[in-house]
Amino acid sequence: MPMEHRVHVLKLDHRPERDKRVTTHAALVSRAFGASKFLVSGVCDSNIRDNIIEVNERWGGTMDFECVTNPLSYCRKWREQGGQIIHLTMYGLHIDDVIDEIRSNPSSKLVIIGGPKVDPVYYKVADYNVAVGNQPHSEIAALAIFLDRLFKGRELYLEFSGGTVKIIPTARGKKVERKGQS
Amino acid sequence: MPMEHRVHVLKLDHRPERDKRVTTHAALVSRAFGASKFLVSGVCDSNIRDNIIEVNERWGGTMDFECVTNPLSYCRKWREQGGQIIHLTMYGLHIDDVIDEIRSNPSSKLVIIGGPKVDPVYYKVADYNVAVGNQPHSEIAALAIFLDRLFKGRELYLEFSGGTVKIIPTARGKKVERKGQS
Repeated sequence: MPMEHRVHVLKLDHRPERDKRVTTHAALVSRAFGASKFLVSGVCDSNIRDNIIEVNERWGGTMDFECVTNPLSYCRKWREQGGQIIHLTMYGLHIDDVIDEIRSNPSSKLVIIGGPKVDPVYYKVADYNVAVGNQPHSEIAALAIFLDRLFKGRELYLEFSGGTVKIIPTARGKKVERKGQS
Repeated sequence: MPMEHRVHVLKLDHRPERDKRVTTHAALVSRAFGASKFLVSGVCDSNIRDNIIEVNERWGGTMDFECVTNPLSYCRKWREQGGQIIHLTMYGLHIDDVIDEIRSNPSSKLVIIGGPKVDPVYYKVADYNVAVGNQPHSEIAALAIFLDRLFKGRELYLEFSGGTVKIIPTARGKKVERKGQS
């Protein structure tokens, strides 16, 4: 990973019929904003995996995917191995009050995003419960803002190795370069 | 509005069966991040409207909602009246290269977020085509990052007048205050 922190993102309690597009968005945000692995508990949805594989093949990078059958014991193991857990929730502490402390700690970060109902135990297993504002909005937005603040905006300059295409930023329309050509 | 810019957000080509939760997330992000109105073209989905009304009643604020039958003429009228249009697209110019210029212009901002296929005309009608990174991710994330950069993070301190409840940020668990009590 080119970023200074190793970050994995865990989406709790994924349900395909309810969450399919929302979880896909969260996975793509994880990849684009510098996380190296996306995990889901709940239903192990191969659509999410397939989508990540397709995006890696086309746009580059090595984003990983995993289904977790016991997310709580996964979290406990993560901490035992010296990793930090950050649970994003609108009930938590304001991101501005904790982000410097989180960033200054070099430990790997497991970022947890929930569904509508998160088991209270995750508020306890987390090192930080972090709120991106205390208004209801979206775990996708919360994840993006958290990673953007963690990486200080540098994640938007990530270069993804491999892939077949690359966008050339342009004022109007679409400019796409095939990799290996110019 | 307590923010220094008047911002409306237009979601193009909403389709309830495909987009319901994604569009709801975009509406809630718009409200929580300082926009004052959310508009959809495509199907006029009363679920989105009902959701916004419910959130306003419970969490405060006066977020507005509108269905637009002809989004292109709406955009043209917006510009005629002196407003700016910012189209969020991964093909656009890097947000860091244009955000200061956008912010320094006091005009009202119409932020357009698309679906999978956006008519090329919107790349032309927009004053700015803005990319929040040039990787595929999520219009919800793009919207959140754009508003966060526009308002320099101050949107996360917005106070919403009215409503019945308010969250008290806390390190563990949930602390919710009924408004008018303490």
